[in-house]
Amino acid sequence: MSKARIEAFSDAVIAVAITLLALNLHVPDPAGSSSLARGLAEQWPNYAAFVVSFTTIGIIWINHHAMLRRIVSVDHTILLLNLLLLLTICVLPFTTALMADYLNANEGQKLAAAVYSASFLFMSLAFFAMQQHLLRAKAHLLHEYLTPEVRRRVLRRNAFGSLPYALATLAALVTPYLTLAICAGLAVFYALPGTTTDVQSA
Amino acid sequence: MSKARIEAFSDAVIAVAITLLALNLHVPDPAGSSSLARGLAEQWPNYAAFVVSFTTIGIIWINHHAMLRRIVSVDHTILLLNLLLLLTICVLPFTTALMADYLNANEGQKLAAAVYSASFLFMSLAFFAMQQHLLRAKAHLLHEYLTPEVRRRVLRRNAFGSLPYALATLAALVTPYLTLAICAGLAVFYALPGTTTDVQSA
Amino acid sequence: MSKARIEAFSDAVIAVAITLLALNLHVPDPAGSSSLARGLAEQWPNYAAFVVSFTTIGIIWINHHAMLRRIVSVDHTILLLNLLLLLTICVLPFTTALMADYLNANEGQKLAAAVYSASFLFMSLAFFAMQQHLLRAKAHLLHEYLTPEVRRRVLRRNAFGSLPYALATLAALVTPYLTLAICAGLAVFYALPGTTTDVQSA
Amino acid sequence: MSKARIEAFSDAVIAVAITLLALNLHVPDPAGSSSLARGLAEQWPNYAAFVVSFTTIGIIWINHHAMLRRIVSVDHTILLLNLLLLLTICVLPFTTALMADYLNANEGQKLAAAVYSASFLFMSLAFFAMQQHLLRAKAHLLHEYLTPEVRRRVLRRNAFGSLPYALATLAALVTPYLTLAICAGLAVFYALPGTTTDVQSA
Repeated sequence: MSKARIEAFSDAVIAVAITLLALNLHVPDPAGSSSLARGLAEQWPNYAAFVVSFTTIGIIWINHHAMLRRIVSVDHTILLLNLLLLLTICVLPFTTALMADYLNANEGQKLAAAVYSASFLFMSLAFFAMQQHLLRAKAHLLHEYLTPEVRRRVLRRNAFGSLPYALATLAALVTPYLTLAICAGLAVFYALPGTTTDVQSA
Repeated sequence: MSKARIEAFSDAVIAVAITLLALNLHVPDPAGSSSLARGLAEQWPNYAAFVVSFTTIGIIWINHHAMLRRIVSVDHTILLLNLLLLLTICVLPFTTALMADYLNANEGQKLAAAVYSASFLFMSLAFFAMQQHLLRAKAHLLHEYLTPEVRRRVLRRNAFGSLPYALATLAALVTPYLTLAICAGLAVFYALPGTTTDVQSA
Repeated sequence: MSKARIEAFSDAVIAVAITLLALNLHVPDPAGSSSLARGLAEQWPNYAAFVVSFTTIGIIWINHHAMLRRIVSVDHTILLLNLLLLLTICVLPFTTALMADYLNANEGQKLAAAVYSASFLFMSLAFFAMQQHLLRAKAHLLHEYLTPEVRRRVLRRNAFGSLPYALATLAALVTPYLTLAICAGLAVFYALPGTTTDVQSA
Repeated sequence: MSKARIEAFSDAVIAVAITLLALNLHVPDPAGSSSLARGLAEQWPNYAAFVVSFTTIGIIWINHHAMLRRIVSVDHTILLLNLLLLLTICVLPFTTALMADYLNANEGQKLAAAVYSASFLFMSLAFFAMQQHLLRAKAHLLHEYLTPEVRRRVLRRNAFGSLPYALATLAALVTPYLTLAICAGLAVFYALPGTTTDVQSA
């Protein structure tokens, strides 16, 4: 299969998922008892989770492109690993809504936060699995020759990229706000130039 | 019409349909009486149906690409058969939600399961019809020469690909869990390398 | 602006709109009083309106591509007319839901049917306006030379293509079922080879 | 990263956002007490906000393409600024729904209108930031040489493009209808040929 169509399909799935995130911004009921200002203000977890998830999906899109730029063709395993990665991305609007709706709830706060960061963890693990398959197994599919040392460096960085999400998931045992803060910090960190998991210079 | 635009349109429709599947993962009501853990656990049919449908649509996308790779141009009949195939794919988020919401219901379990696997059956029949038209009727549209023996093999495999979904629909008469299990097994089976209905080596 | 990006954007908008049509297929409430079989059967207007609208949008997509195939570049007016056409397409999931929900209602049947076919009428008028602009005003944008006689034939066919939807809108004064039947008949008619409003041989 | 994929992804996100606008057109409840005609008529703020937002997003899409046409390649900052711009576009279906649902409400009218035009303001500021980065910082990415005078003209026009949305936001202090009217006027104005913020002749 040509690389062009896997890119087009992935772009479309990621674009729909990132746009569906906004469906979790709710218009307060005009017939409700509290004022609109209060209704909008009480939704701050929705805004925070929206921005964090949007940025994270945006960065995974950048990294996805950088990863595919390395290869010239795709095999069946890449197609399946890419579907797995897209599945984890499609789940994010759901886990983002869960995080937002339960952050200030009386019960379920910690579980919702754990599910939220775990969904990022799964996404980064799926990304890592695809990256690993690309770099290890299939030299003839690669666009350019990578020295073993460069491969190791890229894989190591990818592996470390999953670790903070595991920590954020554990942090949910303490408080969900810490989980959200870690995820937000990671989104900012990965958005900085030179810190994406698969950059040109790698 | 150029092949590029039918691919682009099909990719976009399939991408939206596969992403909309996740709209059927519901955030339990924070004001509800049961705990979040229980609320999430009780949704297991939704997760199962989501993964099965996501994988099945992902595989049909791979097969769709492989099918179109064979041709150089499209005629009016291909456009219509492709629209029919896309229609059956667009219906899947609905039948998936039906399956998930009724799997543990007191009434309608078997009907919901039958509708679910029947929607896969229709999808595979639409795929078969398009494949058949491509291989039989329009030699001048084909990218490469296929021996009659290869054509027969591809068509036979496609025809057999629909049969298990007919069985899964009948299995709903026994129990909906069997239907779901068969559909899940088929998704795993078709995801294996070399078992897609229209592979390179065909 | 290059033709490629107006095609890509239009394809994406039409793909999303055609897929959103399926959101109007509702899963009957498992806790409801009537059986699932009855709940699904009572939704037949939703299935009928879904299939009619899906086919109509699919045909407009085919015609849209055929229309753009004629030109080499786009000007500002084409961009605006294309946006107008896309707006009328984006409205269709709403008018389709309106038709489906009111076909068997006690009140509003005729109005809903009139709005439904009027939305098709607007779509075909927007298509006609774009076609007319392409064929009349901008000879230097055209890919191939069209004789005045061919232009007239294409435009006449497009103009007549709008007329049946005006009739279907009027038919709503009699009964909404007639409107739906006319729209269904038109979808079948336009799907026949050689009857699309802008075919290769035109 | 190639320009092609940032265009494809942006097109897809904008296409989904523009189509989701129509989800805010509601089918009146058939079991409701008022007639369908009245139910549809009372939704006029939804139609008005839909058309204004649709046109505005359509114009930003045209301008986005014109902006990217200038460059040959993208750097990390462009990717991030583009994500920021897409984020502001994804929020528009929410703020459009807010405007529509509160325009005739007893409370919150002015706040909803202010949020609505503020969301356009943010979008135009994100567009301006991206334009500025493209024109100022990265001469080696540019497709064609622009004289300093042309750059200044484009930037000045972009800066002025944000101003009316700031005014529309302030106008919400007076009445939300004025805000809606200004936003509608701007959509019409920018749709006129030669008034887009980044045209070929710039």
